[in-house]
Amino acid sequence: MEKIIGYINAHRQRYIDELIDIVKIPSISSSREHRPYVQRCAEVLKDQMLRAGLRRAQIMPTPGHPVVYGEWLEAPGKPTVLIYGHYDVQPVEPLDAWITPPFEPDIRQGELYGRGTVDDKGQLYIHLKAVEAWLKNEGRLPVNVKFIAEGEEEIGSLHLEEFLRQHKDLLQADVVIISDTPMLDRGIPSICYGLRGLTYMEIEVQGPTTDLHSGSFGGIVANPANVLCEIIARLKDERGRVTIPGFYDKVVPLSEQERQNLARLPFDEQAYFQLTGAPAPFGEEGFTMLERLWARPTLDVNGLISGHTGEGEKTIIPARALAKVSMRLVPDQDPDEIARLFEDYVRHIAPPTVRVTVRKCSTGVGFLASYEHPAFQAAIRALEKGFGRRAVFIREGGSIPFVGTIYGILQRPCILLGFGLPDENSHAPNEKLNLENYHRGIISCAYLYQKLADVDFELG
Amino acid sequence: MEKIIGYINAHRQRYIDELIDIVKIPSISSSREHRPYVQRCAEVLKDQMLRAGLRRAQIMPTPGHPVVYGEWLEAPGKPTVLIYGHYDVQPVEPLDAWITPPFEPDIRQGELYGRGTVDDKGQLYIHLKAVEAWLKNEGRLPVNVKFIAEGEEEIGSLHLEEFLRQHKDLLQADVVIISDTPMLDRGIPSICYGLRGLTYMEIEVQGPTTDLHSGSFGGIVANPANVLCEIIARLKDERGRVTIPGFYDKVVPLSEQERQNLARLPFDEQAYFQLTGAPAPFGEEGFTMLERLWARPTLDVNGLISGHTGEGEKTIIPARALAKVSMRLVPDQDPDEIARLFEDYVRHIAPPTVRVTVRKCSTGVGFLASYEHPAFQAAIRALEKGFGRRAVFIREGGSIPFVGTIYGILQRPCILLGFGLPDENSHAPNEKLNLENYHRGIISCAYLYQKLADVDFELG
Repeated sequence: MEKIIGYINAHRQRYIDELIDIVKIPSISSSREHRPYVQRCAEVLKDQMLRAGLRRAQIMPTPGHPVVYGEWLEAPGKPTVLIYGHYDVQPVEPLDAWITPPFEPDIRQGELYGRGTVDDKGQLYIHLKAVEAWLKNEGRLPVNVKFIAEGEEEIGSLHLEEFLRQHKDLLQADVVIISDTPMLDRGIPSICYGLRGLTYMEIEVQGPTTDLHSGSFGGIVANPANVLCEIIARLKDERGRVTIPGFYDKVVPLSEQERQNLARLPFDEQAYFQLTGAPAPFGEEGFTMLERLWARPTLDVNGLISGHTGEGEKTIIPARALAKVSMRLVPDQDPDEIARLFEDYVRHIAPPTVRVTVRKCSTGVGFLASYEHPAFQAAIRALEKGFGRRAVFIREGGSIPFVGTIYGILQRPCILLGFGLPDENSHAPNEKLNLENYHRGIISCAYLYQKLADVDFELG
Repeated sequence: MEKIIGYINAHRQRYIDELIDIVKIPSISSSREHRPYVQRCAEVLKDQMLRAGLRRAQIMPTPGHPVVYGEWLEAPGKPTVLIYGHYDVQPVEPLDAWITPPFEPDIRQGELYGRGTVDDKGQLYIHLKAVEAWLKNEGRLPVNVKFIAEGEEEIGSLHLEEFLRQHKDLLQADVVIISDTPMLDRGIPSICYGLRGLTYMEIEVQGPTTDLHSGSFGGIVANPANVLCEIIARLKDERGRVTIPGFYDKVVPLSEQERQNLARLPFDEQAYFQLTGAPAPFGEEGFTMLERLWARPTLDVNGLISGHTGEGEKTIIPARALAKVSMRLVPDQDPDEIARLFEDYVRHIAPPTVRVTVRKCSTGVGFLASYEHPAFQAAIRALEKGFGRRAVFIREGGSIPFVGTIYGILQRPCILLGFGLPDENSHAPNEKLNLENYHRGIISCAYLYQKLADVDFELG
């Protein structure tokens, strides 16, 4: 391993430079006008796979953005590792909140700023660079590797399930490694064993056919913006619980054992909350902060728009009002069933004075698994090499639709090995990646492949 | 009068062409970037005053947009008439809802489309053209005339009260004529004796310092967009009544006599409501549609914005959410007191988990007056000449801050002589002016000056 680690150290700057190159590409999957950039990003990624020494690197079409695939399968008798990441990124507004432009990566105090640095291009590159270090120095990998990089993670992995089912044979593996989660805190390597699911909805309230003069019509017509607010207000009660009938029916309760485990984690509630800058915490009664984040579902308005939103005044009754509302779900909530319950309830409470349209935008299942399999021990040992500290087991409040889906298809252990930090602003302005973690992540993954080679998956 | 009416008929097309010229100027008073156009519009208006034969036409500065003033005071012993209108216009979005661009006036089926055609450039020009017809044909007016055109009506006449008080002597008059209201219906000349007031507020809810990943932080932090919706939902009850404590305390109740008068007006509730295109009516229980529109206060959200409003998905907790909320008020509600009650209540119901800012944007007093003065008889006779039908007395749901203010200062009868139609989309896309009404309005005003000359204002 010494040679490999020496190579990683020697190429530290080039590894950063190559990450900067791909961060420059605005691969925003939700934006139609960015489609060419998403495609360009897939091509750059394919080239990087080839440079790293992977075989059969290729761009595989889906009805949406393509999947980039590469492999190295020349370790007969050794385990096969499926590595997952995504190359698409979140939108970037509000643009004026960025200190440097989102697609002009900038290094400040050891952190690389730019959209996609931590979520998820940096984490994808951690694996690519570890693979490169092995192949350039040993001419081989200690395990077989299959690499899959998705282009629609930030839009709910719309076509991923279909893709995975179609290519089930190609993607067969003994273990799945996903690097798209944060560490519990700075310096604490973390392995994630649970994710929340997601149901993303839109509510559109239409009233008058056109904006109306609020003097000439105010008092005789329901205002779509007021009605939308009333509908949204009725989705949660004062204690923060979602009021949609049936919403909590399938939530897996926390076991006493797990509550104790979570309580023992080195997690500073106050420090974490201070990352938000909000004046006071808010959450469901009867749960700790980690329990609220990891094991309880939520409902959040992600966007609201109606009427006159520019400067100054306009005295109108807007013709329409739109809200984007998403729910983070926990096992065993079914995202499609939640979408139905949501729609039914909104239709039920909507008054007859407006027309209400409810749209399901995307869904993703949550994930919760045991971490008993020996592959997890291999991961712990690898992270200890990279970070000099024993890893902790955590859950994660975010959603990665791939995980639940691939677990359902392959029924193989899924190890979520995350190298982000909680304050790295993923999905927000000034997204960044700690470059020390990038480097240590590459070292960890180089060790990970080595340790996984010795795991007996027949037993696991 | 024959010569004058002949001239008005002969110059019908030129009168339209000149209106088109001024409608082309995007004098949106609420937009900082349109400031040069507001100034340009004032200049064009001053030139038109001079062309009409008014004296001392001038642009009078205010701390905001200027007032354009002109006069003709060469009828000693005759009454002095103060005529009011405004040359600023509402914003124009949503732009894609306009069939032809708002500042490229277009005539279709006898109607002139464009922002400001009916509100209020067309109505302002009705008076200017009537004055011109008198002066070009008779070399005199039968009354003294003072003309005042405001540039801030659409932003709550921010600096008008100060201006009126400063120039109280200059503006002394026996009667005030305001043309900025609609007729009750097509073909029914209408004199308005009551207006609603206005209090325009903004609520800004700030939570996290930046947009947050809703997976990483959803469940432990109050969502400003959800909180804003909850606040707005609590401003009205299910029956459409405003819940702000004290809101209705000073509302002048409708007398039985006035209710009977309103019930006798030729007003088709169903036809009027159908102008909105909304699926079903909504309003305060116990009142007819006209009572709701004219004699009851309202609260309407005029704009809402928060988080991700573009296409696609973004799973964030937005850092902030903003609502523009305005209330139409009726006599004797005090708009500044209502602003205080609004702010107090919003602060009272806002949770400690967010920071809430409440801003007062503008206010305007309502207006309600008797129509016993003989000047109103002169207006009835003039409108009968123009429209061939006896005028009705109406109230109006909109607000013209000038009226309450000038009435307070001068204590003279204010006659609201409106030439708009209820379906002419003022404040909305595809604003238009019926050109037949424009023409009949000019004839009516030419007669109005004649009839007012004979009114004994000492008696009135």
